[in-house]
Amino acid sequence: MSSPVHGWPARFPVGRVTYVNGRYLPHAQAGVHLEDRGLQFADAIYEVVGVAGGQFLDEEEHLERLERSVREIGMAAPMERGPLKLVLREMARRNRVRDGLIYMQVTRGAMRRDHPVPEAQPRPTLIITARSLDPQSIEDRRVKGVRVITEPDERWARCDIKSTSLLPNVLAKTAARKAGAFEAWLVDSEGYVTEGASTSAWIVSDDGRIVTRDLSNSILPGVTRRVILKAASEAQIPVEERKFTVAEALAAKEAFITAATLGATAVVAIDGQQIGDGKPGPLARRIQELYRHAALVNQKAQESGR
Amino acid sequence: MSSPVHGWPARFPVGRVTYVNGRYLPHAQAGVHLEDRGLQFADAIYEVVGVAGGQFLDEEEHLERLERSVREIGMAAPMERGPLKLVLREMARRNRVRDGLIYMQVTRGAMRRDHPVPEAQPRPTLIITARSLDPQSIEDRRVKGVRVITEPDERWARCDIKSTSLLPNVLAKTAARKAGAFEAWLVDSEGYVTEGASTSAWIVSDDGRIVTRDLSNSILPGVTRRVILKAASEAQIPVEERKFTVAEALAAKEAFITAATLGATAVVAIDGQQIGDGKPGPLARRIQELYRHAALVNQKAQESGR
Repeated sequence: MSSPVHGWPARFPVGRVTYVNGRYLPHAQAGVHLEDRGLQFADAIYEVVGVAGGQFLDEEEHLERLERSVREIGMAAPMERGPLKLVLREMARRNRVRDGLIYMQVTRGAMRRDHPVPEAQPRPTLIITARSLDPQSIEDRRVKGVRVITEPDERWARCDIKSTSLLPNVLAKTAARKAGAFEAWLVDSEGYVTEGASTSAWIVSDDGRIVTRDLSNSILPGVTRRVILKAASEAQIPVEERKFTVAEALAAKEAFITAATLGATAVVAIDGQQIGDGKPGPLARRIQELYRHAALVNQKAQESGR
Repeated sequence: MSSPVHGWPARFPVGRVTYVNGRYLPHAQAGVHLEDRGLQFADAIYEVVGVAGGQFLDEEEHLERLERSVREIGMAAPMERGPLKLVLREMARRNRVRDGLIYMQVTRGAMRRDHPVPEAQPRPTLIITARSLDPQSIEDRRVKGVRVITEPDERWARCDIKSTSLLPNVLAKTAARKAGAFEAWLVDSEGYVTEGASTSAWIVSDDGRIVTRDLSNSILPGVTRRVILKAASEAQIPVEERKFTVAEALAAKEAFITAATLGATAVVAIDGQQIGDGKPGPLARRIQELYRHAALVNQKAQESGR
């Protein structure tokens, strides 16, 4: 059950602890078998939960989506939600994460390589890692805003499943960084923005509505997206879930991106073209405040056993 | 550099030897770090070389495609072709593979999880496994023929890259097995067959041409496919590289699939509908003979330093 990992030595901080299938291990030494279907076939799904000031953000929603992803690919859940939440807390504690993220991955498990999933499935592999993020650098990025580029959306047809089949996202995000941008907005064959390579995409229309693509198989049902839609509605900010083109985004009053570890962060340029006055807009900031408040209220209600 | 793998115990035969980054290891104990980008992002590519009667099949072509895939995703080759070929031979020898396959995977290596590829890339991870296949059961399957079903092609836009982003292939192949079929033929949004979940798709037209989809980003440039096209041409069998619909396939005189570990295997039914007289056709058999001959001649020429 325990055996050597033979990658080239990676530099991981000493003291990080990682959870794999029931055990807490030194991070630098934690591995999976090389016939794990996660490695062989991207036959795996994942979730990321943000942690801010010691509070988990939208934990129940992320665990719900994890369970849905697992179901969608016909896999068994690796653990009940209750015990899993205890492991997440233990991971935050052991890694001293007050601001950062918890990453979970569930793979179909290890077996002799063969494409089809056998009727008697192997036991799923459950991996959980945790690490700190510097809240100041996230806030600094929010204050400056970020640049995005657009790239063709080359992903598969089931982007609603949060799978680890992420090579197209990696390539798009790499193109963005090479162009000096933070994110790539993916554009479908009809010219509409689907979402970012690892974030949801938003614009603010002329009449002050916040607009983001409607749910379908083309985008991930973003947890942060959903919490923001609800919080904005409650704050009387009109919201619209619909497609928008790159041209509309370029002409928008504001644009922003959202994700579990980012909250809402303003986009100040798309493909080198300035959005609005080229500075983070007031609505992006307001959305971030509403989101932060909603996520905390949400989590407190959940902790007290709502 | 060496550390425990913590998957659930998988049942792998004792005595199998696996190569990971310069070392030959007991297969059951070989793993990769869980922040290997192969596991986290399917940021990896692979190849499979068939072995028949102790001969490698189309080895140079597979290594060439491996190098192309690596280049296409902006990764460095993990090893020169010459030394790599020596490792493949050593793997066949250590695992006593006379009939079977050699599997190679190259991942972007292990590093702290972040979507974009950093400018200073980690050292790639190179994994090689080998195992025997029973040539009699492959021949038995050829004699009986196989059934296929059709499934929507939900893969990404760069199927010409042999990446491990294989979840859609896994789901289609699993659907096939559940339907009592061996393979799923993937059908694009216009109703044309692209290829099988892990094989190339072929039909025989009314006028006796063998037809397979033309190369593009929608299909893998199959090595076996290429060798067969050449061998058939040389044997005066007319070949045509073009799209064909499911309806055309259902009405075809014959149909067959090809792959490195299969050669050419006749398809006797598609979606439960009989093809031809419901038995493997003469042309599928002839193609298999031509392929086997061509692959052996090819390999001998390469071994003698063509």
